[in-house]
Amino acid sequence: MTEEAEHGSGGVYSVEGKEFNRDSRYITTRIVAAPRPGTDDRPVEAGRYRLIAAYACPWANRAIIVRDLLGLGDVISMGNPGPTHDADSWTFDLDPGGVDPVLGIHKLKDAYLKRFPDYPRGITVPAIVEEATGEVVTNDFAQITEDLFFEWRGFHRADAPDLWPAGLRDEMEQVMWRVYTEVNNGVYRCGFAGSQEAYDDAYDRLFTALDWLEERLGRSRYLMGEAITEADIRLFTTLVRFDPVYHGHFKCNRSKLTELPNLWGYARDLFQTPGFGNNVRFDQIKAHYYVVHRDINPLGIIPKGPDLSGWETPHGRGSSGNKTQ
Amino acid sequence: MTEEAEHGSGGVYSVEGKEFNRDSRYITTRIVAAPRPGTDDRPVEAGRYRLIAAYACPWANRAIIVRDLLGLGDVISMGNPGPTHDADSWTFDLDPGGVDPVLGIHKLKDAYLKRFPDYPRGITVPAIVEEATGEVVTNDFAQITEDLFFEWRGFHRADAPDLWPAGLRDEMEQVMWRVYTEVNNGVYRCGFAGSQEAYDDAYDRLFTALDWLEERLGRSRYLMGEAITEADIRLFTTLVRFDPVYHGHFKCNRSKLTELPNLWGYARDLFQTPGFGNNVRFDQIKAHYYVVHRDINPLGIIPKGPDLSGWETPHGRGSSGNKTQ
Repeated sequence: MTEEAEHGSGGVYSVEGKEFNRDSRYITTRIVAAPRPGTDDRPVEAGRYRLIAAYACPWANRAIIVRDLLGLGDVISMGNPGPTHDADSWTFDLDPGGVDPVLGIHKLKDAYLKRFPDYPRGITVPAIVEEATGEVVTNDFAQITEDLFFEWRGFHRADAPDLWPAGLRDEMEQVMWRVYTEVNNGVYRCGFAGSQEAYDDAYDRLFTALDWLEERLGRSRYLMGEAITEADIRLFTTLVRFDPVYHGHFKCNRSKLTELPNLWGYARDLFQTPGFGNNVRFDQIKAHYYVVHRDINPLGIIPKGPDLSGWETPHGRGSSGNKTQ
Repeated sequence: MTEEAEHGSGGVYSVEGKEFNRDSRYITTRIVAAPRPGTDDRPVEAGRYRLIAAYACPWANRAIIVRDLLGLGDVISMGNPGPTHDADSWTFDLDPGGVDPVLGIHKLKDAYLKRFPDYPRGITVPAIVEEATGEVVTNDFAQITEDLFFEWRGFHRADAPDLWPAGLRDEMEQVMWRVYTEVNNGVYRCGFAGSQEAYDDAYDRLFTALDWLEERLGRSRYLMGEAITEADIRLFTTLVRFDPVYHGHFKCNRSKLTELPNLWGYARDLFQTPGFGNNVRFDQIKAHYYVVHRDINPLGIIPKGPDLSGWETPHGRGSSGNKTQ
């Protein structure tokens, strides 16, 4: 995802005197098992779509992880823009010739314009593109992962996790909403705050929420109990960026993730679970934030730290005991 | 101390493509017990001089601590500029009316110009000013603390520490020089690096030196053995700023001070020693760096973190056992 503020204003994320407001208007088309009459739903179909997702971006990282956990890799192909987009678009600068090998485009923006010639908003990832037409279908990051689970069930691998347990749905939505406003987006509200007051408020909200999560994760191995759900994926992509980026770059610095024992054990537990850590690219994450946000890091210098070796250390959490040892 | 680069260039500390070079040309006048013929030495005299030192500045903080440790508070008065100077000068904005009550000036620059009407370099702290004439005498920060010890001995309190033990002088100079180039100034070389290469080099040098210090402090309570020396004061003023400022603002982020057990125990040991912690003003330290260096923190937002409560916790170091428990 890029931020709306970037478009038309040359890469400005923080506006003096203003608090950060994320543009949350996305393309509403969905890909579903049974398209509903009177909508622009597209049908689920193996080999028809391509997930465009930058490893750097936390919102895109969710879709990458869910696709992997559910075993959809052979059904939905994937293209990965590089970490450092310009004010215009995410680009395929990691691919040979700077061109996505399936879509044949340099810029993700081309897929947006193919469908909407006057597309007015941010060129964001994750996006799902129809391979045959080269048109973007959707960029609604929250709907994408939900639909990968419920609509693509026929293609899931046999032992795919139940990411949305029926009995937990209501509580899960509440947890995910709080995690979204206070943590996932909360770190951006700290980093792009345009005034001391907006920053102070965002910081307090963020750490109040992290304290709540720290306490919650002292009672169960995962956010919703003893099994991984969508709520964990959504929290994980922020936690894995916390010390490398948000702690310093976004001034989320009451403490490091490594100083919150339950959250740190939990994050390592997930990181060491197939589907999570293997889809984390720390170098791309750091390059993205520190290079793209020149308005808060003018020279674009990328910190060498932190020491990331701790991610592979024993996490001390298990199915029998919940708390971090 | 302010940086030379600030003067004449409106508060620019980091210059793209360049590494940071500190201007180390200071006023060479000394205040000594026995002025040497043919020099501009001034005589040591109770009540004649005023130390101008901002609590925010690590170089000035050294002089504040040494004056306190040696019991020179009744002999040399002290004025304290506020944390946020402009491109022109440190100012007395914390004093009533914004005027130093003894010197009667708003800006420290006035004391520099009183003596040198065309003074060409940075208006730095610490500075010693002659009260009667209002003229700056010296701003040579390293010489100031050395002379407070050797030249003002007749005024030290009876139980003043021996900050420069005769037998350790040679080794101490080597330690202090390495600490100066790699750590005291090393953090600035990280933060004001104008290129990725200059930053990477400064970071490697800094953490190589911190690893050396971590190992050294596993063998003795203080840098030079079992008693506090000038070398400890010089290291302390950087360590106390490490997590609140240098870790994030200057990208010195391989680890926090709190993650280096011997250095963290050592720093707390000093902090809890009279003369050290009572002369640390965390609020002023944070305000200084984050507000003044707009070229690396454009909106001047001051982080709320880190949690500083750990500074008062037991340090586990003592005269019998050297290592941090």
